[in-house]
Amino acid sequence: MNNLFDHIPEAKAGEFFEALVVSKAVRVERIVSRGHTTPAAEWYDQARDEFVVLLRGAARLRYEDGSIDELTPGDWTVVPAHRRHRVDWTLEDADTVWLAVHYS
Amino acid sequence: MNNLFDHIPEAKAGEFFEALVVSKAVRVERIVSRGHTTPAAEWYDQARDEFVVLLRGAARLRYEDGSIDELTPGDWTVVPAHRRHRVDWTLEDADTVWLAVHYS
Repeated sequence: MNNLFDHIPEAKAGEFFEALVVSKAVRVERIVSRGHTTPAAEWYDQARDEFVVLLRGAARLRYEDGSIDELTPGDWTVVPAHRRHRVDWTLEDADTVWLAVHYS
Repeated sequence: MNNLFDHIPEAKAGEFFEALVVSKAVRVERIVSRGHTTPAAEWYDQARDEFVVLLRGAARLRYEDGSIDELTPGDWTVVPAHRRHRVDWTLEDADTVWLAVHYS
Protein backbone atom coordinates (compact mmCIF):
# COMPACT_ATOMS: atom_id res chain seq x y z
CA MET A 1 0.00 0.00 0.00
CA ASN A 2 1.25 3.48 -0.82
CA ASN A 3 1.10 5.88 2.12
CA LEU A 4 1.31 9.66 1.99
CA PHE A 5 3.32 9.72 5.20
CA ASP A 6 5.90 7.08 4.25
CA HIS A 7 9.20 7.61 2.53
CA ILE A 8 9.37 11.26 3.37
CA PRO A 9 12.71 12.47 2.10
CA GLU A 10 15.29 14.21 4.24
CA ALA A 11 14.98 17.97 4.40
CA LYS A 12 16.45 19.44 1.27
CA ALA A 13 17.07 22.82 -0.23
CA GLY A 14 13.49 23.14 -1.41
CA GLU A 15 10.09 21.64 -1.02
CA PHE A 16 9.68 18.08 -2.23
CA PHE A 17 7.12 17.47 -4.99
CA GLU A 18 6.06 13.98 -6.02
CA ALA A 19 3.49 13.30 -8.72
CA LEU A 20 1.12 10.49 -7.71
CA VAL A 21 -1.24 10.67 -10.67
CA VAL A 22 -0.70 12.37 -14.02
CA SER A 23 -3.37 12.33 -16.70
CA LYS A 24 -4.45 14.75 -19.36
CA ALA A 25 -7.00 16.23 -16.98
CA VAL A 26 -5.32 16.13 -13.62
CA ARG A 27 -2.11 16.02 -11.65
CA VAL A 28 -2.26 14.75 -8.08
CA GLU A 29 0.87 15.47 -6.11
CA ARG A 30 2.30 15.09 -2.65
CA ILE A 31 4.26 18.03 -1.34
CA VAL A 32 6.50 17.90 1.72
CA SER A 33 7.84 21.06 3.35
CA ARG A 34 10.03 21.54 6.43
CA GLY A 35 10.41 25.20 7.08
CA HIS A 36 10.40 25.79 3.34
CA THR A 37 8.73 28.82 1.87
CA THR A 38 8.37 30.20 -1.61
CA PRO A 39 11.48 32.27 -2.41
CA ALA A 40 11.03 35.92 -1.45
CA ALA A 41 9.12 38.03 -3.94
CA GLU A 42 8.20 34.95 -6.01
CA TRP A 43 4.61 33.93 -6.64
CA TYR A 44 3.02 30.80 -7.92
CA ASP A 45 0.94 31.70 -10.95
CA GLN A 46 -0.60 28.50 -12.22
CA ALA A 47 -2.40 27.78 -15.46
CA ARG A 48 -4.87 25.43 -13.77
CA ASP A 49 -7.09 25.47 -10.73
CA GLU A 50 -5.66 23.74 -7.66
CA PHE A 51 -7.40 21.93 -4.83
CA VAL A 52 -4.97 21.67 -1.93
CA VAL A 53 -5.33 20.07 1.51
CA LEU A 54 -2.84 20.14 4.36
CA LEU A 55 -2.57 16.70 5.97
CA ARG A 56 0.21 17.06 8.52
CA GLY A 57 2.06 20.02 10.01
CA ALA A 58 1.06 23.64 9.54
CA ALA A 59 1.49 26.36 6.93
CA ARG A 60 0.46 29.82 5.87
CA LEU A 61 -0.51 30.75 2.33
CA ARG A 62 -0.38 34.37 1.27
CA TYR A 63 -2.16 35.78 -1.78
CA GLU A 64 -1.10 38.76 -3.82
CA ASP A 65 -4.24 40.60 -2.72
CA GLY A 66 -2.98 40.42 0.87
CA SER A 67 -5.29 37.73 2.17
CA ILE A 68 -3.91 34.84 4.15
CA ASP A 69 -4.89 31.24 4.82
CA GLU A 70 -3.52 29.56 7.94
CA LEU A 71 -3.73 25.80 7.47
CA THR A 72 -3.72 22.99 10.01
CA PRO A 73 -4.41 19.30 9.29
CA GLY A 74 -7.57 18.73 7.26
CA ASP A 75 -7.80 22.32 6.04
CA TRP A 76 -8.36 22.62 2.32
CA THR A 77 -8.92 25.35 -0.21
CA VAL A 78 -9.14 25.91 -3.94
CA VAL A 79 -6.68 28.29 -5.56
CA PRO A 80 -8.14 29.37 -8.91
CA ALA A 81 -5.86 29.48 -11.94
CA HIS A 82 -3.70 32.60 -12.00
CA ARG A 83 -4.52 33.61 -8.46
CA ARG A 84 -0.99 34.47 -7.42
CA HIS A 85 0.01 32.94 -4.10
CA ARG A 86 3.03 31.87 -2.11
CA VAL A 87 3.86 29.64 0.81
CA ASP A 88 4.68 32.19 3.45
CA TRP A 89 5.58 29.91 6.32
CA THR A 90 5.69 26.21 7.21
CA LEU A 91 6.59 24.45 10.47
CA GLU A 92 10.34 24.39 10.91
CA ASP A 93 10.77 21.40 13.21
CA ALA A 94 8.41 18.91 11.60
CA ASP A 95 7.24 17.84 8.17
CA THR A 96 4.29 19.52 6.56
CA VAL A 97 2.54 17.20 4.11
CA TRP A 98 0.14 18.48 1.46
CA LEU A 99 -1.94 16.83 -1.19
CA ALA A 100 -2.59 18.97 -4.28
CA VAL A 101 -4.86 18.31 -7.25
CA HIS A 102 -4.25 20.45 -10.32
CA TYR A 103 -7.14 20.26 -12.74
CA SER A 104 -8.93 22.05 -15.51
CA MET B 1 -11.15 27.51 6.42
CA ASN B 2 -12.83 24.35 5.21
CA ASN B 3 -11.67 21.25 7.06
CA LEU B 4 -12.14 17.64 5.99
CA PHE B 5 -12.73 16.57 9.57
CA ASP B 6 -15.31 19.21 10.46
CA HIS B 7 -19.06 19.01 10.08
CA ILE B 8 -19.12 15.27 9.90
CA PRO B 9 -22.75 14.24 9.76
CA GLU B 10 -24.36 11.82 12.15
CA ALA B 11 -24.24 8.19 11.11
CA LYS B 12 -26.88 7.55 8.51
CA ALA B 13 -28.24 4.69 6.54
CA GLY B 14 -25.45 4.94 4.00
CA GLU B 15 -22.08 6.47 3.42
CA PHE B 16 -21.96 10.25 3.19
CA PHE B 17 -20.66 11.75 -0.06
CA GLU B 18 -19.89 15.44 -0.40
CA ALA B 19 -18.54 17.00 -3.61
CA LEU B 20 -15.82 19.54 -2.84
CA VAL B 21 -14.82 20.33 -6.42
CA VAL B 22 -16.72 19.59 -9.61
CA SER B 23 -15.31 20.52 -13.00
CA LYS B 24 -15.52 18.99 -16.42
CA ALA B 25 -12.34 17.07 -15.75
CA VAL B 26 -12.56 16.14 -12.13
CA ARG B 27 -14.71 15.53 -9.09
CA VAL B 28 -13.09 15.76 -5.66
CA GLU B 29 -15.25 14.35 -2.91
CA ARG B 30 -15.16 13.66 0.78
CA ILE B 31 -16.63 10.36 1.89
CA VAL B 32 -17.49 9.51 5.49
CA SER B 33 -18.27 5.96 6.56
CA ARG B 34 -19.11 4.52 9.95
CA GLY B 35 -19.41 0.81 9.66
CA HIS B 36 -20.91 1.28 6.23
CA THR B 37 -20.12 -1.12 3.45
CA THR B 38 -21.25 -1.48 -0.11
CA PRO B 39 -24.52 -3.43 -0.18
CA ALA B 40 -23.90 -7.15 -0.54
CA ALA B 41 -23.26 -8.37 -4.07
CA GLU B 42 -23.07 -4.80 -5.39
CA TRP B 43 -19.95 -3.44 -7.05
CA TYR B 44 -18.81 0.03 -7.91
CA ASP B 45 -18.15 0.11 -11.64
CA GLN B 46 -17.06 3.64 -12.47
CA ALA B 47 -16.61 5.33 -15.82
CA ARG B 48 -13.56 7.25 -14.66
CA ASP B 49 -10.33 6.50 -12.87
CA GLU B 50 -10.34 7.23 -9.14
CA PHE B 51 -7.53 8.29 -6.83
CA VAL B 52 -8.59 7.58 -3.26
CA VAL B 53 -6.83 8.17 0.07
CA LEU B 54 -8.02 7.18 3.52
CA LEU B 55 -7.42 10.01 5.99
CA ARG B 56 -9.00 8.79 9.22
CA GLY B 57 -10.30 5.44 10.41
CA ALA B 58 -9.75 2.16 8.60
CA ALA B 59 -11.33 0.25 5.74
CA ARG B 60 -11.00 -2.70 3.43
CA LEU B 61 -11.56 -2.57 -0.31
CA ARG B 62 -12.28 -5.75 -2.20
CA TYR B 63 -11.95 -6.16 -5.94
CA GLU B 64 -13.89 -8.52 -8.13
CA ASP B 65 -10.69 -10.41 -8.93
CA GLY B 66 -10.44 -11.32 -5.23
CA SER B 67 -7.65 -8.97 -4.25
CA ILE B 68 -7.95 -6.81 -1.17
CA ASP B 69 -6.58 -3.47 0.03
CA GLU B 70 -6.53 -2.82 3.78
CA LEU B 71 -6.29 0.94 4.33
CA THR B 72 -5.15 2.93 7.33
CA PRO B 73 -4.60 6.71 7.45
CA GLY B 74 -2.46 8.01 4.61
CA ASP B 75 -2.92 4.91 2.45
CA TRP B 76 -3.87 5.68 -1.12
CA THR B 77 -4.51 3.81 -4.31
CA VAL B 78 -5.80 4.31 -7.83
CA VAL B 79 -8.83 2.33 -8.95
CA PRO B 80 -8.87 2.32 -12.75
CA ALA B 81 -12.16 2.92 -14.55
CA HIS B 82 -14.35 -0.18 -14.62
CA ARG B 83 -12.26 -2.09 -12.12
CA ARG B 84 -15.15 -3.41 -10.07
CA HIS B 85 -14.68 -2.93 -6.34
CA ARG B 86 -16.62 -2.63 -3.13
CA VAL B 87 -16.10 -1.33 0.38
CA ASP B 88 -15.96 -4.56 2.31
CA TRP B 89 -15.52 -3.21 5.81
CA THR B 90 -15.06 0.08 7.67
CA LEU B 91 -14.53 0.81 11.36
CA GLU B 92 -17.81 0.54 13.24
CA ASP B 93 -17.12 2.74 16.25
CA ALA B 94 -15.43 5.71 14.61
CA ASP B 95 -15.65 7.75 11.44
CA THR B 96 -13.66 6.76 8.41
CA VAL B 97 -12.88 9.76 6.21
CA TRP B 98 -11.79 9.40 2.60
CA LEU B 99 -10.82 11.84 -0.09
CA ALA B 100 -11.56 10.68 -3.64
CA VAL B 101 -10.59 12.26 -6.94
CA HIS B 102 -12.48 11.03 -10.00
CA TYR B 103 -10.77 12.04 -13.23
CA SER B 104 -10.30 11.18 -16.82
